[in-house]
Amino acid sequence: MYPHLRDATIVYLNGKLLPLAEARLSPLDHGFLYGYSLFETMRAYGGRFFRQERHLARLAASARALGMACPDANTLRAAVSDTLEANGLKEARLRLTLSPGEAEAVPNPRAYGTPTLLVQAQPYTPPAEADYALGYRGHISAVPIFSRSPEAGHKTSHYLPYILGRREALAAGANEALFCNEKGALAEGGTTNLFLVAGAVLSTPALGSGPLPGVTREAILELATSLGLKAEEREIYPQELAQAEEAFLCNSVLEVMALTAVNGKALGPGQEGPLTQRLRRGYRALVARETASP
Amino acid sequence: MYPHLRDATIVYLNGKLLPLAEARLSPLDHGFLYGYSLFETMRAYGGRFFRQERHLARLAASARALGMACPDANTLRAAVSDTLEANGLKEARLRLTLSPGEAEAVPNPRAYGTPTLLVQAQPYTPPAEADYALGYRGHISAVPIFSRSPEAGHKTSHYLPYILGRREALAAGANEALFCNEKGALAEGGTTNLFLVAGAVLSTPALGSGPLPGVTREAILELATSLGLKAEEREIYPQELAQAEEAFLCNSVLEVMALTAVNGKALGPGQEGPLTQRLRRGYRALVARETASP
Repeated sequence: MYPHLRDATIVYLNGKLLPLAEARLSPLDHGFLYGYSLFETMRAYGGRFFRQERHLARLAASARALGMACPDANTLRAAVSDTLEANGLKEARLRLTLSPGEAEAVPNPRAYGTPTLLVQAQPYTPPAEADYALGYRGHISAVPIFSRSPEAGHKTSHYLPYILGRREALAAGANEALFCNEKGALAEGGTTNLFLVAGAVLSTPALGSGPLPGVTREAILELATSLGLKAEEREIYPQELAQAEEAFLCNSVLEVMALTAVNGKALGPGQEGPLTQRLRRGYRALVARETASP
Repeated sequence: MYPHLRDATIVYLNGKLLPLAEARLSPLDHGFLYGYSLFETMRAYGGRFFRQERHLARLAASARALGMACPDANTLRAAVSDTLEANGLKEARLRLTLSPGEAEAVPNPRAYGTPTLLVQAQPYTPPAEADYALGYRGHISAVPIFSRSPEAGHKTSHYLPYILGRREALAAGANEALFCNEKGALAEGGTTNLFLVAGAVLSTPALGSGPLPGVTREAILELATSLGLKAEEREIYPQELAQAEEAFLCNSVLEVMALTAVNGKALGPGQEGPLTQRLRRGYRALVARETASP
């Protein structure tokens, strides 16, 4: 049913590697009872991770901000590598989830047990070149997100707005939902950050608009500067999409994917634009350099 | 460590009654991975529940609104009763949690397995009369909630704002956090609904302000009318707390608890006021009538 997640798949749970069917989360885990958890999604390239330290630093910073204990970086690194190795994977998508663990079944922020650390890995095959050329169709969601939420900027498990928006998007024949905040400004895609190209200027919603500070978003901003492009983080409203020459989405797994239509209307060239392609290839080259064996 | 939730405690999980230590939630449960779940908290009186049908109807309506499958009412009723009985409890606090179950570890709204239904029961001893007379101290949280969130009005596991607010409140020596929405209007307490008394008028934040439509809140509004009091659901700003003659909090477990101070300053009489006491006793009488053996 879930081809990549058979019961034989090995997961890491609290220091142990064990088959999925034997991995038990407690019904008292406050990640389950109260949505109190954080996660990171990373992609392995030939068994190595692109900017793993940025992911682990973001997790640790968010845990601190949200009052959650976080295992040290060595524990996290070992958990991630061991899970990859136990599943015999080199090209993979990997999810690391952290919750404060068990506590009495009331929302009590004072008495948690040992944190829950879960790592799941799945084989990953990237989209074909033709899929990148075609790009994704976006759908602007009617579900608003809240830029002043305590979750804003943190990768928590609070995904209900994104699940509902994604359901709308799929029903509309799109691949990704795009979310606006309480002011109507664009924030992000359901699982991606958003970039627009107009003139030789690249722009992406500012962190104040509520997007996740994506590791790939950060790398794209660096890359743009190194390629001599002007890059801006600012407030962007949906009307700008109609005027954009190109747009693209990005995250750690998908890398850079052109956004070629929004709400059923072609965006820019209606296929991957030249600057998007240049950034996609530039990002891939950056990944190759940084994940090359020393 | 959690005196009411020892490993020997019996929980209901997907049709089975089993010791807590043997109850296994899957690491692929989207209640855990994506905070996609709903719950209800009920109190048992002599083994019977007050307005159980309202709780079950709210759960079913929220599940429908949020695109989640929900077991039928007979299954839910049996799960609740069986859990109570298996633990030999008559006076109890009971939590029923529903998630869409397992799916691949990406936020995919199309492919869920069987819903997860979990019921947990704990013995409950209500506060003493002296505690009700003393009341609760409230703390207005700096954490805003979002009245236009898709969760607003639904009892989802999205509790991070409430956990953070509750942490602030406890640190400030208060018992309960009070939350304002994005406009600064009062919405609710962390686990309670809020009522104010001024003149002979009872008021509570309107549903448009973002509170949960509590079963006890609804019963209090009925009770007020039957006692000849005027009751209003409206937008209420925090400044009104200083002018209120009385205020109280309510939920299905705590019933009616006076709010006798806010942010360190006494509210009204600084102890349970006469109207609060009348409603608390009226509510208890209503519960006694409706939960009496036929």
